[in-house]
Amino acid sequence: MDQPIGVIDSGVGGLTVASELMRQLPKEQLIYLGDTLRCPYGPRPKEEVIQYTMEMVDFLLNRNIKMLVVACNTATAFTLDLLRSRLTIPVIGVIQPGARAAIKITNNKRIGVIGTEGTINSKAYPLALQDINSTIRVNDLACPRFVPLVEEGILSGPEAHRVVYESLKPLKEKNHIDTLILGCTHYPLLKDIIQEVMGNHIQIISSGEETAREVSTILSYHKKLYNGDKEPNHQFYTTGHLAVFDRIAKLWLNQPISMIENAVIGVN
Amino acid sequence: MDQPIGVIDSGVGGLTVASELMRQLPKEQLIYLGDTLRCPYGPRPKEEVIQYTMEMVDFLLNRNIKMLVVACNTATAFTLDLLRSRLTIPVIGVIQPGARAAIKITNNKRIGVIGTEGTINSKAYPLALQDINSTIRVNDLACPRFVPLVEEGILSGPEAHRVVYESLKPLKEKNHIDTLILGCTHYPLLKDIIQEVMGNHIQIISSGEETAREVSTILSYHKKLYNGDKEPNHQFYTTGHLAVFDRIAKLWLNQPISMIENAVIGVN
Repeated sequence: MDQPIGVIDSGVGGLTVASELMRQLPKEQLIYLGDTLRCPYGPRPKEEVIQYTMEMVDFLLNRNIKMLVVACNTATAFTLDLLRSRLTIPVIGVIQPGARAAIKITNNKRIGVIGTEGTINSKAYPLALQDINSTIRVNDLACPRFVPLVEEGILSGPEAHRVVYESLKPLKEKNHIDTLILGCTHYPLLKDIIQEVMGNHIQIISSGEETAREVSTILSYHKKLYNGDKEPNHQFYTTGHLAVFDRIAKLWLNQPISMIENAVIGVN
Repeated sequence: MDQPIGVIDSGVGGLTVASELMRQLPKEQLIYLGDTLRCPYGPRPKEEVIQYTMEMVDFLLNRNIKMLVVACNTATAFTLDLLRSRLTIPVIGVIQPGARAAIKITNNKRIGVIGTEGTINSKAYPLALQDINSTIRVNDLACPRFVPLVEEGILSGPEAHRVVYESLKPLKEKNHIDTLILGCTHYPLLKDIIQEVMGNHIQIISSGEETAREVSTILSYHKKLYNGDKEPNHQFYTTGHLAVFDRIAKLWLNQPISMIENAVIGVN
């Protein structure tokens, strides 16, 4: 179907999901909306996250999307069920794909989850995991220093290594997980260091990769995959500074963006 | 939902898919039907495969399944679209999940596929892969000696090693694949030897694991996952010899089967 896939995020983190969608589904066209102006959603009350998310969704529904990807863990935790009951198009969040991939991969049924304080406090991952398999043991840990690190572009070197090492110490010391879910869309940019700190015996799940895989599954199931031969023309919108978003997007997507514009949503 | 998942296969191969379903979705109840009497389907004409498959499907629909898994590559290649158009419950085959997982994992976009002659000749995997990404290069190879080896229980030792080595030689020599799809539900039982022969740099995709993952995705999406606390009571049916099926099932599932019965379907 010749309609775009809509991707929403509170800011730039969802670009890691967009990047994987572009890699795994290279024929599909994306419309990405990052609410950079009101980012982060993590510390906001649930009602506010719902309101902001619905404003983003309205913006994309007006642009005729065939599917919605909620590429933000906080927004997924608070709005996924609501969106699925209200929208007639398929809606996918980032939490369940990561949970299912971890269940597929784990051998000892001990799964670690790292994320922002909002996501970890919501218990969305333990609930999603144990809903499927109640014998899974989950060790979760908030890593509040990771997002600032990534947004400042510190993705390697001694400082990044030190922050990751100090943050993950509790998870590394006391537990025997064999699988670790990166429960925040910023974290894949630190994946190499996280792998190094945790050790090569730990299998790391990136929600972006897994979400893109499930977008493929659901689109295929609903016969909505694009099968024409037009090159996709991705569109990016941000509620914040164009230049800042543009710089990060180029870097994270590893390619220039052809179309980027400001989006006016809600009261901003 | 308190209804079983139906799994059909031309014989015992689909037990590797059932095994993964039991591991990844331990709360779900399965009804498995293996048409061992008329196995293999691979060399049969398309119309016959369709007829036999429809007979299996009718048997399971009468047992009130909530979802159908076609755990047989040949039956998937020939009947998936038909079944999806006719049935009101979700239907999943084994080909697309393996294809999607390979696309997620590959770095160099060169994917190998091994399967029976029927599956390889159908070109179902290259079609599924290139439908999603037309720049993927596929090297497929029929390995007709693998199924007899597995059915005779020769899963390790020098003979198994020799057959796997000789069979995979053409794939190993001339190509530079980084990902290999086991496009036959028997092959996961030879996975360790295949990995050894191909080398550790090759990532091996088992359709059973990936299909179970997508069953989870689709059931969850349709809000059909079982969330009660009854222990599942799996049921196995075969059109062939009970004792033979029972012996293989215990071995492959690594646990005894509580309920196994003969199924009478079609004209047999």
